[in-house]
Amino acid sequence: MENFTYHNPTRIHFGRGQIAKINRELPANARVLLLAGGGSIKANGVYEQVKKNLGARVTHEFWGVEANPDFDTLMRAVELARKETCDWVLAVGGGSVLDGAKLVAAAVHHEGDAWQILVTHGAAIKGPVLPIGAVLTLPATGSEANGNSVISRRATKEKLAFYHPQVFPKFSVLDPETTFSLPERQVANGIGDAFCHVIEQYLTFPADGQIQDRFAESVMRVLIDVAPRTMANPRDYDARANLVWAATWALNGSLSAGVPGDWATHTIGHELTALHGIDHARTLAIVLPSLMQVQREGKRAKLLQYAERVWDIKSGGEDARIDAAIEKTRAFYESIGIKTRLQDYQVDAGKTAAEVARRLEARGETAIGEREDITPAKVEEILKLAA
Amino acid sequence: MENFTYHNPTRIHFGRGQIAKINRELPANARVLLLAGGGSIKANGVYEQVKKNLGARVTHEFWGVEANPDFDTLMRAVELARKETCDWVLAVGGGSVLDGAKLVAAAVHHEGDAWQILVTHGAAIKGPVLPIGAVLTLPATGSEANGNSVISRRATKEKLAFYHPQVFPKFSVLDPETTFSLPERQVANGIGDAFCHVIEQYLTFPADGQIQDRFAESVMRVLIDVAPRTMANPRDYDARANLVWAATWALNGSLSAGVPGDWATHTIGHELTALHGIDHARTLAIVLPSLMQVQREGKRAKLLQYAERVWDIKSGGEDARIDAAIEKTRAFYESIGIKTRLQDYQVDAGKTAAEVARRLEARGETAIGEREDITPAKVEEILKLAA
Repeated sequence: MENFTYHNPTRIHFGRGQIAKINRELPANARVLLLAGGGSIKANGVYEQVKKNLGARVTHEFWGVEANPDFDTLMRAVELARKETCDWVLAVGGGSVLDGAKLVAAAVHHEGDAWQILVTHGAAIKGPVLPIGAVLTLPATGSEANGNSVISRRATKEKLAFYHPQVFPKFSVLDPETTFSLPERQVANGIGDAFCHVIEQYLTFPADGQIQDRFAESVMRVLIDVAPRTMANPRDYDARANLVWAATWALNGSLSAGVPGDWATHTIGHELTALHGIDHARTLAIVLPSLMQVQREGKRAKLLQYAERVWDIKSGGEDARIDAAIEKTRAFYESIGIKTRLQDYQVDAGKTAAEVARRLEARGETAIGEREDITPAKVEEILKLAA
Repeated sequence: MENFTYHNPTRIHFGRGQIAKINRELPANARVLLLAGGGSIKANGVYEQVKKNLGARVTHEFWGVEANPDFDTLMRAVELARKETCDWVLAVGGGSVLDGAKLVAAAVHHEGDAWQILVTHGAAIKGPVLPIGAVLTLPATGSEANGNSVISRRATKEKLAFYHPQVFPKFSVLDPETTFSLPERQVANGIGDAFCHVIEQYLTFPADGQIQDRFAESVMRVLIDVAPRTMANPRDYDARANLVWAATWALNGSLSAGVPGDWATHTIGHELTALHGIDHARTLAIVLPSLMQVQREGKRAKLLQYAERVWDIKSGGEDARIDAAIEKTRAFYESIGIKTRLQDYQVDAGKTAAEVARRLEARGETAIGEREDITPAKVEEILKLAA
């Protein structure tokens, strides 16, 4: 096991009716920037509950944070927060709203170009960061309990991530009931995203992190178990609650402590979103099976462990078991309605593979993955295999 | 799943050489009360590393916190902290030193009789609590990352626990190498203690907390795997690191969030320590198998899950599988050198069973366990079965 520091200071209020806790969490004199998406929280009653519990606090609302939150949109939220001297950001929505809230919180007191926060992956953050609270309405990204944020810039077709310990939410409310009304597509995306988060932290060269391995396998098994239950019956509270809690643990720092991570699937997937606007989770489903194939030698031991412990594949030769595990992975995504081939998205694999390779090359990302052995040429190979 | 709030703010520095982090964690002007046990930290080099990293900070040392830390001892530490106006407590040692540090930190500014902190299980804590840092030298209690403390009072043969959110350590250093020199008996006790912590949170009526169940099963499987490795070769870094990390997760709040807990094994075990001075972990090994037997109907579903997922017991009738799982549990404790029968400790089961039942009755603890169905009469039955 490698040395590590583990710290997750977010207080989670989980369960029915827990939105009431924001009244306890926010100071009475807080000046709140309420950040939200397109309005679904008005339809499902979340907004009403939030407003009630904000009570008489000064609140300024900023609506319109989109999926793959856009830098320019968020800069308008920053302007509002500065103008109204907001001192808390309350994110009400899914991972995009949360990721956006993190950039806003970090940018309000940032001097100079806030895009530098992204370019430096968070290192440019020097000033104070506004405290963040969250009411999560979509289980997926884990953003409710981590210090990560992914921001897109449509103007330049860029998509970058940053991390900073100050952007962990101070508190997050996770009420599974608020997710009952989500469209099926978003639930599926959430499951697929969370599953891949675990894989990125798990499917690496073995590092004898036994707790980390078994926790990762636990989260994957729970996702595999609850996916059909919660898709078939969105109002099954326990199934949904297990999905929500699994998605949080998929990316709250516990699985990655002391072990290597990979994240090449995400790096390549982000390019597919930037180029073709494919949903984030769907890009992962496209890239992951092919990446497993291309990287199977370096990941051999862990792929065999994955086959046995996650999919109960225990017989057959090593390569047969690895192939079976990769097929199970693909079938899992397909079973929740997420297509895993580029052609399913009307994307020309050859052209896109070359373009993604070129873009990574241009950004200097010429050695990605856990062993930094995924070159642009390998990225091209992976994407062609995903045709 | 039940509603819950989950919050674990302790920052963990894990690995070789991480004691150096205390220099970053403690303010330069901190006035430190260093709390320690009998002196083993001088023999194994931990004290030297700690002193080096405390540097020029004002430090007052209090030595002599014993196993099952004694209230009267700790009150002398409180006097020292008050006299020297200490504003940080640094615990350097195992769970007893940590538990003691929590009482000291809470008692320094407490008005009136500090024993009330124990009697009220923490509710009496009103004043400010000194911040706590820890350098853990014995993997066992999980006290390095929770808000729990168990304190004994030899003068009255009492042993009580308290919880308070303010006594979570601000930071804890876990360097597996500092545990290499532990006596075999203490390592075994740590493993046995951690295993029972998991059982108390897991072996209950099912609550469909799938993450919690699988994480609990993960921690138990890791303990079962590393116990023989780390006992056979105490200097095997990875085995010891996995033990240390498993023991932390066994009681950091993650396994109990949203699901019922039992803790009757601990309640009964504490009485055996109070009456006969038996090591804490050993009392758990005595009580647990018999408690499983006596409570097998209420715990039937979870005992079957435990048999299958933790011990791979998949064939035979239900009762046979439960019996096998209980025997596996007993054999696990015996395999690490922890005897599981009262007669192994030269204790008369009949007399002790009656005495423990009488003491619990006298304290009004007449309905313990997850379903509050363990009466003093049942306690007597459990202890007689443990003869």
